[in-house]
Amino acid sequence: MLTKPQLGAGDETATDVVALMADIGRRARAAARSLALADPAAKTAALHAMAAEIRKGRADILAANAGDVAAMEAANQLPSFIDRGRLDDGRIEAIAAALDVVAGLEDPVGVVTAAWTRPNGLAIERVRTPLGVVGVIYESRPNVTADAGALCLRAGNAAILRGGSDALATSRAIHACLVRGLVAAGLTPDAIQLVPVADRAAVGLMLAGLDGNIDVIVPRGGKSLVARVQEEARVPVFAHLEGICHVYVDRAADLAMAKAIVVNAKMRRTGICGAAETLLVDRAVAETHLVPLLDALAAAGCRLKGDAGVRALYPAAEAATEEDWSTEYLDAVISVALVDGLDAAIAHIETYGSHHTDCIVTADEAAAARFFREVDSAIVLHNASTQFADGGEFGMGAEIGIATGRMHARGPVGVEQLTSFKYVVRGEGQTRP
Amino acid sequence: MLTKPQLGAGDETATDVVALMADIGRRARAAARSLALADPAAKTAALHAMAAEIRKGRADILAANAGDVAAMEAANQLPSFIDRGRLDDGRIEAIAAALDVVAGLEDPVGVVTAAWTRPNGLAIERVRTPLGVVGVIYESRPNVTADAGALCLRAGNAAILRGGSDALATSRAIHACLVRGLVAAGLTPDAIQLVPVADRAAVGLMLAGLDGNIDVIVPRGGKSLVARVQEEARVPVFAHLEGICHVYVDRAADLAMAKAIVVNAKMRRTGICGAAETLLVDRAVAETHLVPLLDALAAAGCRLKGDAGVRALYPAAEAATEEDWSTEYLDAVISVALVDGLDAAIAHIETYGSHHTDCIVTADEAAAARFFREVDSAIVLHNASTQFADGGEFGMGAEIGIATGRMHARGPVGVEQLTSFKYVVRGEGQTRP
Repeated sequence: MLTKPQLGAGDETATDVVALMADIGRRARAAARSLALADPAAKTAALHAMAAEIRKGRADILAANAGDVAAMEAANQLPSFIDRGRLDDGRIEAIAAALDVVAGLEDPVGVVTAAWTRPNGLAIERVRTPLGVVGVIYESRPNVTADAGALCLRAGNAAILRGGSDALATSRAIHACLVRGLVAAGLTPDAIQLVPVADRAAVGLMLAGLDGNIDVIVPRGGKSLVARVQEEARVPVFAHLEGICHVYVDRAADLAMAKAIVVNAKMRRTGICGAAETLLVDRAVAETHLVPLLDALAAAGCRLKGDAGVRALYPAAEAATEEDWSTEYLDAVISVALVDGLDAAIAHIETYGSHHTDCIVTADEAAAARFFREVDSAIVLHNASTQFADGGEFGMGAEIGIATGRMHARGPVGVEQLTSFKYVVRGEGQTRP
Repeated sequence: MLTKPQLGAGDETATDVVALMADIGRRARAAARSLALADPAAKTAALHAMAAEIRKGRADILAANAGDVAAMEAANQLPSFIDRGRLDDGRIEAIAAALDVVAGLEDPVGVVTAAWTRPNGLAIERVRTPLGVVGVIYESRPNVTADAGALCLRAGNAAILRGGSDALATSRAIHACLVRGLVAAGLTPDAIQLVPVADRAAVGLMLAGLDGNIDVIVPRGGKSLVARVQEEARVPVFAHLEGICHVYVDRAADLAMAKAIVVNAKMRRTGICGAAETLLVDRAVAETHLVPLLDALAAAGCRLKGDAGVRALYPAAEAATEEDWSTEYLDAVISVALVDGLDAAIAHIETYGSHHTDCIVTADEAAAARFFREVDSAIVLHNASTQFADGGEFGMGAEIGIATGRMHARGPVGVEQLTSFKYVVRGEGQTRP
């Protein structure tokens, strides 16, 4: 499979993406072995050095970014897409500051998460270890290059980063800073590798696992990217396909609290995965709660789509179709249904939800307890906005994404979730009878 | 894909294994939803009732087993294979007793494994939940039917069991007892389903995940079964392909302790995955330690294969080939090498091991600490036999297998490893700024 990839300016011609990617995989595995044994202080020093290099390299990064943005404009990309790919002084400082935050996180490797002694005297500990090699496949947000690389490094993992081709020059400029930081701290530059070509075949090779040299894939991007990764990957994936997040306003909800939570959950930022997409209102309080809730949403600029019961009380709402209940708008739109109490709310979420983040607003502790137990989502909230679905808000310092699978990582994926473990057993000559 | 499966005696003719397996998958998913919410006491009662039904059903199980054994003998199966499939009163009581042990294990579902409060007052808990549906594919040990079904139930998971065709009648008789126990405790009989046909296509369908209705596969059996599962499965797998376990006798080892550990690690039971397959002896103590160690192994009935250095000191050893270092004998055979100290021992294990269980014998705490840190295996031991690699010996009560992967479960897979988790967040109206 010989291909001629499109290359960034100034790159040598890579004629064989298969050989290139195989080499990246082997280097990553070797780097993972050495990172697993790296001194935590060296990783901390590298992360701070990476931040310093980003600040020092500001002019180079901006120059590379100007080229990427010009190409995106020439290609008539959507303004929102171009905006996500555009850097300025503030965004570059934010990237550097995020590296300093990760530098300050506790190093997870070697942390003892459980310890017990057996009747025969064997002392057993479960100790965190790195996962190995993390492959990150993302679209054109250049900050992911630094964020993902840093989180992997903190957890002792080697990273293989494959960013969107539209921001490749920017990613390469950022990556060059990361590598200088690694080398300054005495770590291998292969700890964080960036796929240097835009060839899409590289993605397929990563999804196949690079001959066993990738342990987990983290996709960061839209639904079509995540769907492809989940469909094709032959290695574990930490991801969420979509966040169809619900707020259920129970009969025992305080109306003022419900209004604040619903408006925040939907409208604070509509484009994030933790944004609410569906409002469920207990029919028992429809007469008192529905109109004020929908007025508040409308006042905040939200388009409303309701079922028949909702529209009977609030005719300004458009009619929701069956498809609306399973649609992630990522926009100032919400679907609204009346439900017959807690059981019906839970059933609706089970039928249409995506197991991401769901909230109940109620003063009834028993109802909240049932919601917590019965809603099978990565994050369930009581009397708090779904927009808190975020590793930073959870106190993890940073996250590489949010997972809705049930294996290994679920919810925000931070440094701890990027580790594995081993059992360490201390004896005094014990043999098994 | 219509097939005519071979059926157990008295079975209706299943003409469509695809439809059969799809139905099993849907039932399992529905059962998993109800099990996730089951009262822990109901699960405990079901497990005890299952044990009682096994004891009551002894005659039926033995009759079914006699038929299976007769068929295996008529087919000229290996005596060791037939022995693994044969039941007697003692083995049936052991199956029942194991169910009572699992009944006594702490129910993991709902256990809070972490709790913290954010500066904004949000109280976050990480709470254990079931994984969902566990598929277990095993060979002809009929006890796995009960053991695996019970562990899955304790963790709130639905189980789909696919046992070896040679023991199918026995497995069906045992499974009938499990179902009676489930029903007696008011739980759905679909909590533990046994694939009722011997058609090998059922395995392929399970490995493909039954339309998303299997969350994880656990293979129990020989290397060829595990290799097929690891190669073909489209869902996560908890498994180890083989246990190439090492004992490294360091220069600071106490000779008497080393002899006891080496003989136990190799010879206590040679057929289990935690049995030692390679002995590494520090060249610095070859003159004093090697001959007594090998004499002890030989006296215990072990065949010895050594490298040139070993044979120079112990000419009775056969010559080991390169292949021996990566061979899991599962028999009274051991490969023996002299190594140049700790670094060479670690390098040998990294090159030839299977990341399962490895041991260092030494009085040098610093050497043990380095071995613990640098050997990348699920279980690392200091001054204790590798035969302790077992969920029961770890205090987990029971295990469904041992995993050497780095995702989710590693080492013995007990009830905790068969769970996932969710985040539960309690607020008082917080919205995200």
